[in-house]
Amino acid sequence: MEITVSRSSKTPMYLQIKNQIEAMINSGKLPANFILPAERAMSEKLQVNRSTVVKAYMELKAEGLVEARVGSGTVVLPSPARDGVQEKTYVPPLRWNQLESRRAVKSNEQTISNILSVFEKERVISFASGVASEDSYDLELFKKIQTQLLEKYREKIFMPTPVEGCTELKHTIKSYLQQNGINAGVRQIMVTSGSQQSIEFFARLLIEPGDVVLVEEPTYIGAIQAFESYEARIVSIPMDEEGIRLDVLENCLVKYRPKFLYTQPTFHNPTGLTMSMNRRKELLRLAYYYNVPVMEDNPYGELYYEGEKLPALKSLDTNDYVIYVSSFSKTISFSLRVGFVVAGENIINRFTRFKQITDIQTNTHSQYLIHEFIAQGHLKGHLENLRRINKMKRDMMAAQLQRGKIEDMKIYVPGGGYFIWLELPKNIVMSELLKQLGDVGVVIMPGDVFFPKFNVENNYVRLNFSYPKEQDIKNGVEKLIECIVRCSENSKKLRRPVETVINPYL
Amino acid sequence: MEITVSRSSKTPMYLQIKNQIEAMINSGKLPANFILPAERAMSEKLQVNRSTVVKAYMELKAEGLVEARVGSGTVVLPSPARDGVQEKTYVPPLRWNQLESRRAVKSNEQTISNILSVFEKERVISFASGVASEDSYDLELFKKIQTQLLEKYREKIFMPTPVEGCTELKHTIKSYLQQNGINAGVRQIMVTSGSQQSIEFFARLLIEPGDVVLVEEPTYIGAIQAFESYEARIVSIPMDEEGIRLDVLENCLVKYRPKFLYTQPTFHNPTGLTMSMNRRKELLRLAYYYNVPVMEDNPYGELYYEGEKLPALKSLDTNDYVIYVSSFSKTISFSLRVGFVVAGENIINRFTRFKQITDIQTNTHSQYLIHEFIAQGHLKGHLENLRRINKMKRDMMAAQLQRGKIEDMKIYVPGGGYFIWLELPKNIVMSELLKQLGDVGVVIMPGDVFFPKFNVENNYVRLNFSYPKEQDIKNGVEKLIECIVRCSENSKKLRRPVETVINPYL
Repeated sequence: MEITVSRSSKTPMYLQIKNQIEAMINSGKLPANFILPAERAMSEKLQVNRSTVVKAYMELKAEGLVEARVGSGTVVLPSPARDGVQEKTYVPPLRWNQLESRRAVKSNEQTISNILSVFEKERVISFASGVASEDSYDLELFKKIQTQLLEKYREKIFMPTPVEGCTELKHTIKSYLQQNGINAGVRQIMVTSGSQQSIEFFARLLIEPGDVVLVEEPTYIGAIQAFESYEARIVSIPMDEEGIRLDVLENCLVKYRPKFLYTQPTFHNPTGLTMSMNRRKELLRLAYYYNVPVMEDNPYGELYYEGEKLPALKSLDTNDYVIYVSSFSKTISFSLRVGFVVAGENIINRFTRFKQITDIQTNTHSQYLIHEFIAQGHLKGHLENLRRINKMKRDMMAAQLQRGKIEDMKIYVPGGGYFIWLELPKNIVMSELLKQLGDVGVVIMPGDVFFPKFNVENNYVRLNFSYPKEQDIKNGVEKLIECIVRCSENSKKLRRPVETVINPYL
Repeated sequence: MEITVSRSSKTPMYLQIKNQIEAMINSGKLPANFILPAERAMSEKLQVNRSTVVKAYMELKAEGLVEARVGSGTVVLPSPARDGVQEKTYVPPLRWNQLESRRAVKSNEQTISNILSVFEKERVISFASGVASEDSYDLELFKKIQTQLLEKYREKIFMPTPVEGCTELKHTIKSYLQQNGINAGVRQIMVTSGSQQSIEFFARLLIEPGDVVLVEEPTYIGAIQAFESYEARIVSIPMDEEGIRLDVLENCLVKYRPKFLYTQPTFHNPTGLTMSMNRRKELLRLAYYYNVPVMEDNPYGELYYEGEKLPALKSLDTNDYVIYVSSFSKTISFSLRVGFVVAGENIINRFTRFKQITDIQTNTHSQYLIHEFIAQGHLKGHLENLRRINKMKRDMMAAQLQRGKIEDMKIYVPGGGYFIWLELPKNIVMSELLKQLGDVGVVIMPGDVFFPKFNVENNYVRLNFSYPKEQDIKNGVEKLIECIVRCSENSKKLRRPVETVINPYL
C-alpha cells in the first residue's frame, strides 16, 4: 500500500491520504476486509502528524468505505457495487448479541415465564402461581354471558374499542371504584391489558436511566422487572407488621429524591402484610411533604378473609398524588387480561399514547365480558365465594404448616390475598430444598426473586394457597415439610457449598 | 447568618463551614427554602478558597439538607422531623410535566387513538380505519365455537397460557405458516397481543437512542411510533411500482449502517404497493451483504384480489435474517388482539422476557378461539369470503373515484389489502379538505402521518374500503369528490394560507 504526501500541494495532507486510499478501495486494490495500517504506523511512515492520519481515516469512515473494528483496526468494508458481479456464497449469520440494545440484554429474568409454563405440566403440585383455582369458575354462568354478549352486542364484540378502553366498562369500573371510596371520572380511568401493563406504562412515563424508585422489600417481581427495564435504581425499604417502615422511607426520600414510590398496601405480594390505617395516613403525609408520587398496586384488596377492609390509599388521597392500579385478574380471571389504572387526565393521555404503540387496545370480548359480569350483579356473589374458598384453603395450609413443628420456621399468615410467606430455618440451603422439591413434584417460589438485589442472605419462601386443590395442599405441604426436615438434617451432617442453583420450574 | 472559620483548627475548613450551617438548619435558624449565600460571595466573606465553600455545600447536599435549584441557588430543604409538629396545610400539586421521562414527552402522536374513537361515533362514514367490516363476521359460527371452547377446554379458558403463547395455537400457526412456504418450529413462533406488540418488542430489542432504522416512505404509522419511542433515527426510502428502491436502499445501508430495515413487501400500508419477486430477492441479497436484519410485516398477505400470491421474504430467506410478523387482526378479528412473530429462538427468548414485563400473556380465550377457528378448517372459507367482499368494495370505490374525473388526481388501486392511495391535485390544501369532510361527516386518513418526517409537501390520502358498507362507500366517495372539487375551485379563486390543521377525528 503506497501513499505519497506532498507538503507543497494545495490539497490538505489528510485529504491527499484519504483520496489515495479511496481510489485504491474503489479500484479493488484494497479488497473488502483489508486492514489499513494502524494510525501511528501510518503517521510515522508518512512523517505526518498522527492527527492527519486520524482525520483521513475519519473521512473514509464517514463515507462508508471503512469501519473501525475492535481488535482488528480500521477495515475496508465490502460493497456489492464495487465488488462487481461476484456473489458472496457464504453469508455470515447475524450476530444478534452484538445488535441488541442495553435494555434488551438486561431483561433476562424469567421467573414469571417459568411459573406460567407450569400450568401446562401435569402431575405437579404448584404453590408458585398467583391465580385463582380452576374450580372457582362458574362455567355455566360464563357460557350464558358469552352467548348473551354475541346476542346483545353482535359484531361489536369483534370491532375495536377506544384505545383507553370501552366506554361501558369504564362506567362500570367508575361505579365499582365508588363503592370502594374512590371517586374518579371516566376520563381518569383507563383499561389496560392487566395491571402489569399499567405498571409498565408508569415506569415508561417517569423513569430516566439512573432515577431512584422506592419499593417495599420484598416486592412484586413484575414491578421490579418493569422498573429495571427502564434502568431505574431500585431502593427497597423494609417492612414491619404495619407495612413499610416510615423512618427508613423518610430517610430515603431525603437522601435519594426518588422519582416515585411503588407500594402494595393491602395483602402485599409476597408477604401478605397489610399497612395499618395510621401508616397509610402518615405515608401520604410524607408523599405530600416531599412531593413524591405514589403508585398504589391493589390487586388483592377484595380478597379479605377477616377483619374490616382498610381504605385504599387512593381513597385517602386528597391531592392526586396516588396513581391507583388494580385488575380483575385475581378476582374474575387472570387470563382475560383486564386491568385498569386511575390517574389524572394528563397521565391517562400519556398512557393512551403508550398503549397505541404497544398493543393498540385491550381485547374487546374480555372488556365486554367483564362489563356484563359486573353490570349484571355477579361480582358480589362471586367474591363471597372466592373469599370463602380461599379462607378455607389458607387456614388449611397454615394449620398443616404449623403441625410440621419445624423449629425456627416463621409462618406469616395473611388477612387476605393469595400467599403465605415462610421464613425457613437458617440452616436450610435453598438450592438443595428446591432440588428436593423438584424431585417430588412440588413447585414453590423462593423468596429471593422478590428482593430487588436478589439478597442471598435470606431464606424466604412464598406459598400460594388459592390455586392448588385441597388435596394438593395436603400432599404438597406434607412433602414440603419432609423436604425441609431432610435438608435441615443434611445440613447438620455435612456443611458443603452447593455448586449451582437448580431452576425448579424447568 | 454568621459563620466563623479558624485556620488553626484541626477540623478542615470546609467541615467547619458545613457543621455550622448544619447546626443552623437543625435548630431551625435557617428555615426551609432559605437560600444560602452564593458560593463566590461566601468565599469572599470568609476569605477562603471558593472550592472550600463548594465542598461544604456538596456535603450538605449529600446529606439531604440543601439542594441546588436552578435560578435560586442552594436552598434549605424542608423536613417534617425538623420542622416539628406544624403540618403544611397547602400541598403543592405534583408537576407531572417535570417528572416525565424524555421518552414519555416524545410519545405525543394520537392518530391511531383518534381512528379507534371513531368506532363509537354514529353517523360518520369512516374511510380511516384498518379493520374488516362488521358484516364480515359469521356470528353463528363464532357463537358455536365459543360454546365448544367452554365445553372442550372448560376452566382452561380462564387459566394462564405460557408467556410465549398456548402450545395448541403455536402448532396451528406452524402448519399455517408451512402452507405459506415458511418453515418454523414451534420454538421459533411466539404469540403476541397483535403484531403491534411484535413490532414494539423488536424496537425494544435492538434500538439504542440515535440508531438508524430504515423504513419505506411512506410506512405504517404504528411502526414509526414504536421506533421513535426508542429514539431511533428513522431514515425512509422511497418506493416505485416494484416497491422499495434498491439503489437508495444500498446507499443508505452504506451511509447509515442501520440497525435494521422494516418493510411491508405485500399490500403495503398505506400505498397498497407490492414488491416484485425480483426485488424481494435483491433486497435479501443486500441484507446479507451488509449484515442487516429485516423485519417483514405481513398483515395483509392473505387478502389478495387478483394475480398470484408472491412468497413472503421470510420464505425466501435462507440465512435467518428476516423476522416475520403477522396477525389475525386483518383476517379473523382486529379486536381479539392475536398476532405472532417468527424468529430465532434467542430472539423469542428475549421477547418472552419483554412480554413478561409488559402484559404477561395474550388473552387465553382469544388464543383458543383462533386455534379452534383454524383447526376446525374455517379459515379457508372465511378468507375466500373476505377476498370476495373486499375485491368488490375495492372495485366499487376505485370506479367511483375514477368517475369523479378529477384532473391531476392519481388513484393507486392495490392488488390486495385494505387501502386505496390517492394523490390529490397539487392545489388542494389538505387542512381545508379535512375541514370540509368533517362538516359532511366523512373521515379519511391524510397521508402525511405515514411519512416519518411529517412531510408537508405531499398531498396524499389513504382510503380504506374494507370497513365501510357499500352504501357508505357510494355516499362517502361522492362527498369526497364534491369536497375536492370545491377545495380546488376555492384555491383557484383565493390563495390564502390556512391557519391551523383541523383534526378530523374529534
